[in-house]
Amino acid sequence: MTVVLEPIATVVGGRAEATDDDWDKERAVIQLDESRFDAEAISGLDAFSHIEVVFQFNKVSDDKVQYGARHPRGNTDWPKLGIFAQRGKNRPNRIGVTVCRLLSVEGTRLEVAGLDAIDGTPVLDIKPYMRDFAPRGEIREPSWTGELMAGYW
Amino acid sequence: MTVVLEPIATVVGGRAEATDDDWDKERAVIQLDESRFDAEAISGLDAFSHIEVVFQFNKVSDDKVQYGARHPRGNTDWPKLGIFAQRGKNRPNRIGVTVCRLLSVEGTRLEVAGLDAIDGTPVLDIKPYMRDFAPRGEIREPSWTGELMAGYW
Repeated sequence: MTVVLEPIATVVGGRAEATDDDWDKERAVIQLDESRFDAEAISGLDAFSHIEVVFQFNKVSDDKVQYGARHPRGNTDWPKLGIFAQRGKNRPNRIGVTVCRLLSVEGTRLEVAGLDAIDGTPVLDIKPYMRDFAPRGEIREPSWTGELMAGYW
Repeated sequence: MTVVLEPIATVVGGRAEATDDDWDKERAVIQLDESRFDAEAISGLDAFSHIEVVFQFNKVSDDKVQYGARHPRGNTDWPKLGIFAQRGKNRPNRIGVTVCRLLSVEGTRLEVAGLDAIDGTPVLDIKPYMRDFAPRGEIREPSWTGELMAGYW
């Protein structure tokens, strides 16, 4: 069984190549596919400070996709972990999900900051960020995540 | 251009039909596709209290998908909003993204609580929830979201 999707938008601008860190300083535009959507599809979104963007790491070639375990970023200082226990891009289905700041909305263009997706990235969905979708209950995570994420944003 | 994905797992158990509220009490299993993955793919995930699940609302028929604006849940007390300014299921590509609690990991099975996806739902990705992926900066959202979400979890 396969799932066939059609990108709803494209990332325009921002970084040209995927590198590991300092994403928060990046600005980019998410341009809706105007052959299918007009401004009505995002009306009201400007009332939100943040959006959640679902996108595809489409530059990751099939031979790079991991199905088992690996060290995050190939760094042996961190434990070997299943691909679904990390958020790296070389993953089955190559889906990224990131909450970024929404700076402005103009027609079918969204200007955003801190989106860790490069120029040309296909966008599969856009959702408003609601506090009620934050985790419920106490959050627990291993110590390696803080080390890995130290310079990310 | 289309994006072809293959589900990595399936939701087993929990609610049989999509209804609006009281999701946090639901428990379900996310069963990895064992023809492609073994326990290694999720090794280390048990160190996280929460996971982010990307899934498809596959029961939504094509004719239900919204491309413009509508009142959330059809309720005219709330403003008419673009489909990408809300998180409802009748959306292009029918993608859901939810952070839920990870109760246990056994082999290729993840037991979860508070996942708002029904029995049989195809899962497209699983990511560990990291505090560093929470929104950066002050969060602003309109007042209707709190009303809509009051009984959701």
